[in-house]
Amino acid sequence: MHSISQYQTFIAEHFAQISIDKEPKNLYEPIQYILSLGGKRIRPVLTLMAAEVFNADYKKALAAATAVEVFHNFSLIHDDIMDDAPLRRGHETVHEKWDINTGILSGDAMLILAYQYFEQYEPAVFRDLAKLFSKTALEVCEGQQWDVDFENRDNVTIQEYLKMIEYKTAVLVGAAMKMGAIVAGTSDENANLIYDFGLNLGIAFQLQDDYLDAFGDPLTFGKQVGGDIIENKKTYLYLKAVEFADADAKAQLKHLFSIQPSDNTDKIEKVKALFNQTGSSEATREAIKDFTFKAFETLDNMQIESDKKTVLRTFGENLMGRKV
Amino acid sequence: MHSISQYQTFIAEHFAQISIDKEPKNLYEPIQYILSLGGKRIRPVLTLMAAEVFNADYKKALAAATAVEVFHNFSLIHDDIMDDAPLRRGHETVHEKWDINTGILSGDAMLILAYQYFEQYEPAVFRDLAKLFSKTALEVCEGQQWDVDFENRDNVTIQEYLKMIEYKTAVLVGAAMKMGAIVAGTSDENANLIYDFGLNLGIAFQLQDDYLDAFGDPLTFGKQVGGDIIENKKTYLYLKAVEFADADAKAQLKHLFSIQPSDNTDKIEKVKALFNQTGSSEATREAIKDFTFKAFETLDNMQIESDKKTVLRTFGENLMGRKV
Repeated sequence: MHSISQYQTFIAEHFAQISIDKEPKNLYEPIQYILSLGGKRIRPVLTLMAAEVFNADYKKALAAATAVEVFHNFSLIHDDIMDDAPLRRGHETVHEKWDINTGILSGDAMLILAYQYFEQYEPAVFRDLAKLFSKTALEVCEGQQWDVDFENRDNVTIQEYLKMIEYKTAVLVGAAMKMGAIVAGTSDENANLIYDFGLNLGIAFQLQDDYLDAFGDPLTFGKQVGGDIIENKKTYLYLKAVEFADADAKAQLKHLFSIQPSDNTDKIEKVKALFNQTGSSEATREAIKDFTFKAFETLDNMQIESDKKTVLRTFGENLMGRKV
Repeated sequence: MHSISQYQTFIAEHFAQISIDKEPKNLYEPIQYILSLGGKRIRPVLTLMAAEVFNADYKKALAAATAVEVFHNFSLIHDDIMDDAPLRRGHETVHEKWDINTGILSGDAMLILAYQYFEQYEPAVFRDLAKLFSKTALEVCEGQQWDVDFENRDNVTIQEYLKMIEYKTAVLVGAAMKMGAIVAGTSDENANLIYDFGLNLGIAFQLQDDYLDAFGDPLTFGKQVGGDIIENKKTYLYLKAVEFADADAKAQLKHLFSIQPSDNTDKIEKVKALFNQTGSSEATREAIKDFTFKAFETLDNMQIESDKKTVLRTFGENLMGRKV
């Protein structure tokens, strides 16, 4: 098997070759633009990795991996419109650089392009990939809708929040890995197990994102530390803090999550103190561990060589130990 | 074979059964809403008709027909956002009744749902349908982009305009019919011929739409007569008029297509007179006939019973003779 950084190189090289230099320019240039912004490419890397875990050449999985990444970038374009986000990966978002209509239409085209990458596979594989893809893509839309809905709700439960991040983020991680399994032609059981592996790791990953957003090292964390707090985002940390807090702490939290001061330094410090004091930080770290271990448990039943299991476990441990 | 009105009944009954009563409500209610607005359902009717032309039970084609109609409605939601249209089929557009973000996300979900309807077919048929669908959907996006681009251009050629309406409108008509052929399992040659039949009829249909928009009977034409003229839309009628006009008439046309008077009565009459005077009206009627005959020519090589050819030809003649 190859290393993660090797897979990243394969993906980078593959994307460098993909030229979407087609007419009409106003439709395809934004696609070329967002794909050229890079990013960590975690999802397509996982597709290649999963293919090799089940003894297929990673090259066979490149088309499926591309579909996953193109879909992910489609969802970024449309989400950025909905969130009115000016920046993505340090560059102007598509709707900012062009306009909203361009973002809508180029995004639509990307969703379709993603399906087309599956056409390189034989009918039965094509059908399995496209079916999984449709199911996953619809869940991602549902997750995005829940996320939007939650902004206007004051009674979101932990269970609902977990379901939201599962749909919005984790199902695509699971699907990315299962696509590698499908391309490799492994058993349905193995394919479902690697899906669960990716799904649970995806949830752990998103919870850790929530955690690092508040407690990450400003020097290594890619985004602004405290960003979620500034935006009054009801993340796992917030929901758990409200759950654990006594009446006084709860009132403080609710107040802090209703204000938008011009200088956020004090607010961030107070919220973080409450996250620690209520036991929410600890509970979040526990939840990250729980979902990571849940991912590792799928390895027990997976029918693969033990060195392959080690690769998957190491990947998960590195992800859990990440600071960025 | 069944009659057009019978196919319409089958489609209406089928859509009445489809319930998209799923969570989250804010994602699925807009989908249910736009699908319940009805419309002529021409595209899915053509899918059923094509299936029977090639000796399959229309029921076998219902899922593919549904995919086509769901996709068409997806494109309406996103187009209506881009055009800032308040009304669709006499009711509020989705982004007007909800908001733009809802229109974007519910539209995305519909595009994915459309693919899912193909899952009912066996792998080889699924693959053929999904492949044709992706190609067509991408062309529809390209057509929409050309249409947007043309608004800001003053040098659109007739050839470019025809390409635009081919992509934006006609390819989906061709694909709707070819899907019936694929489901029926007819020869590739027959499937390609019925695609060309639909494609050319689709172009004729759109040109007739342009024509009726100016010269239709206000009592029977569904939309406001003169709407394109009011909006200074560079349709086939306008482009041909500019092509044929002498310097004086050309200047008048360009002027009339640059103003937006509060009362359009005079402008509409003047433009229509110029369309007639330059020979553009006549040329447009000729073009409609040409594309209709081009559609009929595909019947010569189609390997089907002659009564089936009569059905297709009659359908085309009725479409050409339509007043609405």
